Amino acid sequence: MGAELMTEVSGRGALANIDGTVIKRAMAAVSTMEVRSLGLQVRNGKGPVGPRRQPPQHFMVRDGGDAALAPEASARHGFSFSDDILLIPTHGTTHMDALCHVWQDGRMYGDLPADLVTSRGAKRLGIEEAGPVVTRVLIVDAVPEGRPWLDAAEPVSLDLVRHRLDAAGLVPERGDALFLRTGWVEAWAAGVQDQLGWGGLDVDAIDWVLESGFPIIGADNIGVEMSPASDPACAVPLHVRLMRDHGVYFVELLDLAGFAGAAVAGMLTLAPLNIVGATASPLAPVVVF
Amino acid sequence: MGAELMTEVSGRGALANIDGTVIKRAMAAVSTMEVRSLGLQVRNGKGPVGPRRQPPQHFMVRDGGDAALAPEASARHGFSFSDDILLIPTHGTTHMDALCHVWQDGRMYGDLPADLVTSRGAKRLGIEEAGPVVTRVLIVDAVPEGRPWLDAAEPVSLDLVRHRLDAAGLVPERGDALFLRTGWVEAWAAGVQDQLGWGGLDVDAIDWVLESGFPIIGADNIGVEMSPASDPACAVPLHVRLMRDHGVYFVELLDLAGFAGAAVAGMLTLAPLNIVGATASPLAPVVVF
Amino acid sequence: MGAELMTEVSGRGALANIDGTVIKRAMAAVSTMEVRSLGLQVRNGKGPVGPRRQPPQHFMVRDGGDAALAPEASARHGFSFSDDILLIPTHGTTHMDALCHVWQDGRMYGDLPADLVTSRGAKRLGIEEAGPVVTRVLIVDAVPEGRPWLDAAEPVSLDLVRHRLDAAGLVPERGDALFLRTGWVEAWAAGVQDQLGWGGLDVDAIDWVLESGFPIIGADNIGVEMSPASDPACAVPLHVRLMRDHGVYFVELLDLAGFAGAAVAGMLTLAPLNIVGATASPLAPVVVF
Amino acid sequence: MGAELMTEVSGRGALANIDGTVIKRAMAAVSTMEVRSLGLQVRNGKGPVGPRRQPPQHFMVRDGGDAALAPEASARHGFSFSDDILLIPTHGTTHMDALCHVWQDGRMYGDLPADLVTSRGAKRLGIEEAGPVVTRVLIVDAVPEGRPWLDAAEPVSLDLVRHRLDAAGLVPERGDALFLRTGWVEAWAAGVQDQLGWGGLDVDAIDWVLESGFPIIGADNIGVEMSPASDPACAVPLHVRLMRDHGVYFVELLDLAGFAGAAVAGMLTLAPLNIVGATASPLAPVVVF
Repeated sequence: MGAELMTEVSGRGALANIDGTVIKRAMAAVSTMEVRSLGLQVRNGKGPVGPRRQPPQHFMVRDGGDAALAPEASARHGFSFSDDILLIPTHGTTHMDALCHVWQDGRMYGDLPADLVTSRGAKRLGIEEAGPVVTRVLIVDAVPEGRPWLDAAEPVSLDLVRHRLDAAGLVPERGDALFLRTGWVEAWAAGVQDQLGWGGLDVDAIDWVLESGFPIIGADNIGVEMSPASDPACAVPLHVRLMRDHGVYFVELLDLAGFAGAAVAGMLTLAPLNIVGATASPLAPVVVF
Repeated sequence: MGAELMTEVSGRGALANIDGTVIKRAMAAVSTMEVRSLGLQVRNGKGPVGPRRQPPQHFMVRDGGDAALAPEASARHGFSFSDDILLIPTHGTTHMDALCHVWQDGRMYGDLPADLVTSRGAKRLGIEEAGPVVTRVLIVDAVPEGRPWLDAAEPVSLDLVRHRLDAAGLVPERGDALFLRTGWVEAWAAGVQDQLGWGGLDVDAIDWVLESGFPIIGADNIGVEMSPASDPACAVPLHVRLMRDHGVYFVELLDLAGFAGAAVAGMLTLAPLNIVGATASPLAPVVVF
Repeated sequence: MGAELMTEVSGRGALANIDGTVIKRAMAAVSTMEVRSLGLQVRNGKGPVGPRRQPPQHFMVRDGGDAALAPEASARHGFSFSDDILLIPTHGTTHMDALCHVWQDGRMYGDLPADLVTSRGAKRLGIEEAGPVVTRVLIVDAVPEGRPWLDAAEPVSLDLVRHRLDAAGLVPERGDALFLRTGWVEAWAAGVQDQLGWGGLDVDAIDWVLESGFPIIGADNIGVEMSPASDPACAVPLHVRLMRDHGVYFVELLDLAGFAGAAVAGMLTLAPLNIVGATASPLAPVVVF
Repeated sequence: MGAELMTEVSGRGALANIDGTVIKRAMAAVSTMEVRSLGLQVRNGKGPVGPRRQPPQHFMVRDGGDAALAPEASARHGFSFSDDILLIPTHGTTHMDALCHVWQDGRMYGDLPADLVTSRGAKRLGIEEAGPVVTRVLIVDAVPEGRPWLDAAEPVSLDLVRHRLDAAGLVPERGDALFLRTGWVEAWAAGVQDQLGWGGLDVDAIDWVLESGFPIIGADNIGVEMSPASDPACAVPLHVRLMRDHGVYFVELLDLAGFAGAAVAGMLTLAPLNIVGATASPLAPVVVF
């Protein structure tokens, strides 16, 4: 295909594959002008969140009750306002991982030492190094027809994904993002699956992602790759082989409930908050179809 | 101009002015494929933030130190990772106000009662109702040539803004966003101004914004409009007349340091987090030039 | 008995019953000089907490890993230190309720309107009005012999409590605190009961508490009184009749695991944090036996 | 005096010096039955706090406004309640340091390695190892007569302290706590001093504290010892020599405003929250005079 991911080490990891040509392609994918957010709702005290993480908390610090009860303190000449605060794990809703999120044998992407990540945050590879992204995204349902979701630890069938792309006339090109629907968010909401397991990509996808030239992969589950992993010696082989080794970015906990059966392309914008030294940023991916 | 803002009440406020035609215009504004974030850095314990708000706090909950000191607890087969949590006022960095943020005489946009905003958040007009936005943005420096920033409570000269737009051959059209550089963030960083005052739009801009058809206005200060206001009876007349009365969205604390002297157009994407019932969302506006 | 609680409205509620005579009695109850905390462990992400509350979160902001990995940033002349932050619901571990915590028909203790409690906290009856307490405490196991805990919604048998007090030669006097072991914390830890139900005092205890002269009642459950309540028209009749009507203070989520079979007296110190306007304070009650 | 601190390493550090004899002495110091809290007010967004720490934040999550505006959601049969959450640096108000708070050359008290302190908290010497304390406290004003407070970096005069103790007929005995008023909290509230400097104990106090047998020292400033220190090679020599080497506990940010001119004794109760692995606990020290 000639589309293989360029994986020389760069400041932005594999995002260096996204150049003006790719952005033009993204814009060319726009047809109906429909604008969609793929960000899950952020609700006080609600998940889904990964193991050992707490759900977001949303605190109102000024509201209509204050204005009603204490107008002298809360309003001037009839004007008043509301205000609030958010506590959120950076991986606690739809988010994009920073390259400082993982390491193997003490080394992060680009052979940078994990020692750069301290209580003050990451001195290198924090989410602020990703910057904003505009690219073409391919959104493909990885759930076989007739089923609501993949089972926990069920691998995505690459054949099914390729077949659906083919059927839609979509050919991956270097720089595209790939978002896969596994149905896990729906399974979680239905109480059928939990934060300890989900379907997703297996190790057979590693080479295919590189060959297809995807600098960004995403899914509607906690890790993009399936959990538990098929490799007993590595809990997250795709995080190691793709994120750590090649700087591929992972977008997790996507809201893809509306894409059952789909294989579609659109213009994707990822706008991570510029949190200095953070291991991820919550975000609402925007797609224009 | 025939471009006046349509201000019938709608679910998304003035964002209803942004249709497919506007999105096409946004894409047509793209030329160099340069992608920029206008989001300020989010730093632990650092501002700028508005009065009575605390700066963001960023807590690491797992880092390279843990892996180094307690590998048995923090790594398996050599793999480990970092994780973190963010506490952030929704208005505590670059953000987009929700329409539930303000009211006058107990009424929000669309005559909805402020009583809908309780400790559980806003039942209506929360930031989740805004949804994602793609439109054309006009970014104009409102600081006169030769000066670093507007003074506190210095009104933006509409003549200067119009002159710079004209000189750049830019004509506002209904649905465009308008972002104005006041220099306040730089003045704040230099310790010359503080969170109690800034330059910005004055009441003379109210009609002009409506006539120009801007459903979104933004600036690199805390309120878009100047502070203190010129109107002794109303602290934030533009919030009342534009946001409350007409559903115009405000984007505040923009990073426009790179736009001194500029009058430029680009494709803007706003991707507020889908925080149910929130009065705003932190975000990183993305512009493609 | 002549010991009935004086319940004229006072600034400190029923704590006005604790005078120098009571403190002397508290000291007279000391014999072995054993000092015990009745505060539960506060653990990151762990309960028990009541419905709709999140567990405490404990964030390290500086630790031994930082010193090891970045000594130049974290140590001077070999010295370094650790630091941390706590996020805790005020009712999210062992705590003492403030009188502003409850109201009936819009009125709190002393006929004060609930309107005094806004997003800025309580203007009256916040925990800062309780102040510190030193008194005699009677700690009695309310679990019948041979059982590990009361069932959910199982009322404490006042006969059992009186019997155990009698057998121990303990006579309640005005100003004493009463702490009852229900076993709920152990039942919760064992996974047998949850935050939706527990054994505790039933409505028959209301008069007895007043007649016995207890200005403070406490238990090792979420509400001192049992849940669900026996009264279908009132979820928390003791909160209404004792806290709201008479200013009796409630201490909840006590650690009484060590008091199976006990009926003992000691000198109790309650030291609520001086949180202005708060509805409760976490605390570690200290008893000297 | 024969009162020297026993400083063999123990699980509770120097608190092992407090035995039944000391507790009896504490009770013997009680005369008027006056009960006082030495805890500062905890206020949303207010200090004083040390450098790089944020002030506490207090969030209401349910209040009188909710009940008024949405009775159907907030009240049942006329009953309703308020609830709230506290975010507080463990050193961010009146607090007691844990022995894991400091180390020199990688070693904490008892030669334990600082490596035990990770993002999950301290595996050893967390505040949960201190437990509750009841002892006699000597509260002495260290501010010379006629002055409102010590200057920043002004050492406490031990002669003045000894003189005032003598004049009051108070003789330190092994196991007593020593609390010194420096006036810093008042100087801070007056805007005269800030979090970068305060008066306190200097290195000449090290031997005196050990000889006097104080396992606990406290003050109304951020560090008990003065800041900046007189020793250019060590920012906090008393933390190293007393806390690190001998397990002496420090209680900081005391509210001693009412003790100008005083040298008094009372019964002190310290009730740290049982926060597992924490470097300190906020608390409200209680003294009975």
